[in-house]
Amino acid sequence: MPIGTLYGISVGTGDPELITVKGLKLLQTAKVIAFPAGINGKLGIAQQIVAPWISLHQHQIALNFPYVQERLVLESAWQRAAAQVWQYLQQGTDVAFVCEGDVSFYSTFSYLAQTLQQIHPESLVQSIPGVCSPMAAASALKLPLTVGAEKLVILPAIYQLQELEAVLDWAEVVVLMKVASVYPQVWKILERRDLLERSRIVERATQKAMVIYDNLRDRPSLQLPYFSILIVQVKSRDNY
Amino acid sequence: MPIGTLYGISVGTGDPELITVKGLKLLQTAKVIAFPAGINGKLGIAQQIVAPWISLHQHQIALNFPYVQERLVLESAWQRAAAQVWQYLQQGTDVAFVCEGDVSFYSTFSYLAQTLQQIHPESLVQSIPGVCSPMAAASALKLPLTVGAEKLVILPAIYQLQELEAVLDWAEVVVLMKVASVYPQVWKILERRDLLERSRIVERATQKAMVIYDNLRDRPSLQLPYFSILIVQVKSRDNY
Repeated sequence: MPIGTLYGISVGTGDPELITVKGLKLLQTAKVIAFPAGINGKLGIAQQIVAPWISLHQHQIALNFPYVQERLVLESAWQRAAAQVWQYLQQGTDVAFVCEGDVSFYSTFSYLAQTLQQIHPESLVQSIPGVCSPMAAASALKLPLTVGAEKLVILPAIYQLQELEAVLDWAEVVVLMKVASVYPQVWKILERRDLLERSRIVERATQKAMVIYDNLRDRPSLQLPYFSILIVQVKSRDNY
Repeated sequence: MPIGTLYGISVGTGDPELITVKGLKLLQTAKVIAFPAGINGKLGIAQQIVAPWISLHQHQIALNFPYVQERLVLESAWQRAAAQVWQYLQQGTDVAFVCEGDVSFYSTFSYLAQTLQQIHPESLVQSIPGVCSPMAAASALKLPLTVGAEKLVILPAIYQLQELEAVLDWAEVVVLMKVASVYPQVWKILERRDLLERSRIVERATQKAMVIYDNLRDRPSLQLPYFSILIVQVKSRDNY
C-alpha cells in the first residue's frame, strides 16, 4: 500500500479567506488535519483560522510544540509529533498540517517535516505556499512593503541592537518580527534616527483583533502581543 | 453616487489555485478586471493566471506599463492607467486589478494606486495579500526559506556586486530576484565563498514551465528568464 503524503498548508495570518484555493481544496478533502496545539487551554492559531472550513467528520490532531528554547525538549516534541503523523501516513492516509502564515517562513512545519524525513526517509512531504505576515501587514497598512530597487531585510527577532543599527544604515525597508520584548530599545534607536514617522506596527495582521499603529512618534512604550510586526521604511518614499 | 473601489488582488506566482479565497471572490464578482498588458503580443502574466477564473461577461482592460527605466515615460503611463481605471470608479463601478505575486511586493499596483490617489485623493483602494515569489520558490524547492533566528535579505536586483558580498557576510538567507542579467558574476562570488551547493534557482515558480536548479556547482552560466529567483542559504543548516 502506498504511504500517505504530509501536506504543509499555509493558511495565512488570520482572516480565514486568506487561505489559497489550492490549500483549501487539500484541507477539505483531508481525512486527518493536524495543527500546533494551543497553549493555556486556548485553541491553536492555525486551528482557529481553519475552523470555518473543516467539518466534523474530519479527524483533528493537536500536536504539541512547546514554547521553549531548550533544544532537547524541542527535539523530543518534534519526534513525538512526527510519530503521531507517521501513524496515519504509513497506513496510506494523507495528513494536512495547517500553519499560520507561510509554511516556509519561520514555521513549525519545517521542524516537523525535517524530523519526519530523518526518521522515515521514505516519507512524502509537500508544501502549499501562502500569505506571510509582512505581506498581510503591508496590505493592512495600505502601503507597499517594497517598490523598485528597495532592499528588504527581515529580522525574526533581535538579539543584538547593534545589528539593527547596521541594517538601518543599509536597507530601504526593515521588518522586525516579534518585536514586543525589545520594543522600548528599538523605539529609542528609531527616534535617534528620526524614523518614527516612517515606522509602523501591525498587531495580529488580518485577525479580528488587528491593531495598527501608523506612526510611532508618541509611543515610546507599547504592550504588544507576540504576533506584532514592525515595518520601518528607512529611506524616504514621498514619490516612488 | 458613491465611487467604486480599486482592488489590488494578488494572484500568486503562476498556479491559478494560488489565489486566495478572498481574492477569488472579489475577482469573480468584479464587473471590470484590469491587468498589466502583455508585451510582444503575448497575454500578460497576471491575465494568464486568472484566465480560468473569469467569465466572458466580465469587462477586461489591459493597462500599458512599459518595461523602461525613463521616469517620465513611466509616469505618463501610470497617469494614463489611472485615468482608465478612474472612468469606472467615478461611475461607482469597482475595478479588480490583478497582479502576479503579492500586490505589496515590488508590484506595478503600487504605482497605479499611488498615481490614482495623487490625482483623485478621494479614491478608495484596497489590497488583498497573496503568495509572493520567495515563498512559492521555497515550497517548490521543498526547503524552508527561513527557520529559527535566520536573518533574511531580499535584493530585487543587483546594481553593485560589493553589496552582495556584504550581505553574504551577514545574513543567513539571501534572495536575489531578477538575477538573470548578473548571473555569471554572482556565480563567481558564490564559488569563491563555497556556497554553490547551498544556492538554488527557481525559474517561473509554480508556472507550468517551472525549472529548478537545486545546486549551482556545475552551472557557471545559465540562460535565465526574467522571473528567476536565486536563494542562497548562506549558513549551514544541516539540522535546524
